[in-house]
Amino acid sequence: MTVKALTFDTYGTVVDWRGSVLSELEAFGASRRLGLDWSAFLADWRSCYRPGMEKVNSGEWPWTTVDAIYRRRLDELLQAHQIRGLDTAEVEHLSRVWWRLKPWPDSVPGLARLRTKYVISPLSNASFAGMVHLAKFAGLPWDCVITAENAKCYKPRAEAYRVAIGLLGLTPGDVMMVAAHNYDLRAAQANGMRTAFVPRPTEHGPGQATDLEPDGDWDVVAESLEDLARRLDT
Amino acid sequence: MTVKALTFDTYGTVVDWRGSVLSELEAFGASRRLGLDWSAFLADWRSCYRPGMEKVNSGEWPWTTVDAIYRRRLDELLQAHQIRGLDTAEVEHLSRVWWRLKPWPDSVPGLARLRTKYVISPLSNASFAGMVHLAKFAGLPWDCVITAENAKCYKPRAEAYRVAIGLLGLTPGDVMMVAAHNYDLRAAQANGMRTAFVPRPTEHGPGQATDLEPDGDWDVVAESLEDLARRLDT
Repeated sequence: MTVKALTFDTYGTVVDWRGSVLSELEAFGASRRLGLDWSAFLADWRSCYRPGMEKVNSGEWPWTTVDAIYRRRLDELLQAHQIRGLDTAEVEHLSRVWWRLKPWPDSVPGLARLRTKYVISPLSNASFAGMVHLAKFAGLPWDCVITAENAKCYKPRAEAYRVAIGLLGLTPGDVMMVAAHNYDLRAAQANGMRTAFVPRPTEHGPGQATDLEPDGDWDVVAESLEDLARRLDT
Repeated sequence: MTVKALTFDTYGTVVDWRGSVLSELEAFGASRRLGLDWSAFLADWRSCYRPGMEKVNSGEWPWTTVDAIYRRRLDELLQAHQIRGLDTAEVEHLSRVWWRLKPWPDSVPGLARLRTKYVISPLSNASFAGMVHLAKFAGLPWDCVITAENAKCYKPRAEAYRVAIGLLGLTPGDVMMVAAHNYDLRAAQANGMRTAFVPRPTEHGPGQATDLEPDGDWDVVAESLEDLARRLDT
């Protein structure tokens, strides 16, 4: 292998989106004495994510950031649950909880080690600005930020991977995609990239049934980003 | 002013390209006992920069990175000066001296302070990969990397500024362009951005005659990036 750069899925792979969002929603509910099942609220909110991206990838929608997709759905949910009295800035702040996600404990030390030898970048379906703010919030030591917004389409569309490889000035075989999701690695591999699987068995909370094991011929399977750093000789 | 992000010209404004390249060329010459006027060689090499970018902006050339523009000219110059015996990797290394430029003494401390309050990004005519490597080499603490390559055209074309503002998810008035070059600020201002001038009177070596003074109505004029940090309350 002649890997020169690593690109990382971020939601789930690097940061614990569910734990982070749920904890903010619960604090929001407590401060307003709202007796909701926030875990169900979050599942409902999150359920707009994949269909929204598919509408962009199919051409049904013009380019739309996940921030806008989440914001639209949040407006609907606030109305459905009759949560009233929030001004625009408060709704915007709540919606941007997706920019305030905590890294898994191994993420920052693992990335810091990997960065000493490789160029490291997210390759996420986040908005560009969202990833910039998330990196600042979580202290993710990226060398640069690349997201689906640079390609104006979402993973697993080939263009998302190809734009990243092009911006890095490399050939596909020089770039390793790191993800906790087999579908992402399958698409990366189909585009000639190297692949590393890092399972995150609690990403989706208790009873997670998907992506517990690698289900492809990935170049590396690691237990964490620190373990990945070790396996890649950093 | 409601500035949320700062975008920086990089060659000249943040790093001392001339001093850095000249010192590597002189070391290269000494190691090979080549008695050339390296200052003249560099001036000749650098002279391809602006015309190359203009050919891209006019549509005469397809998108071409400055790395490729410099590499093409270096091949010509090596031939013209009958410098022989370098293999491809050695020519490539020499050409990538533009990725190994030293920051001005105030650049890293100034950027580190500005970063505590603002999103900071280059907005350079460098290639994306070139800026990533330059940032790693020089320790520039960017929150993200944005270059002309994201727009596939060069400053001062409006599209280069607009793509940056769009990726940052901001309105033009929320973004301040920082540069040692009046032409760059003029274009940024024409696109609605805020502007900060930081003179670099030795960028072009002894006897520099251009950009010694601000020649527009810029929002801030600072002596250095540390002075800019002070003026922007960081």
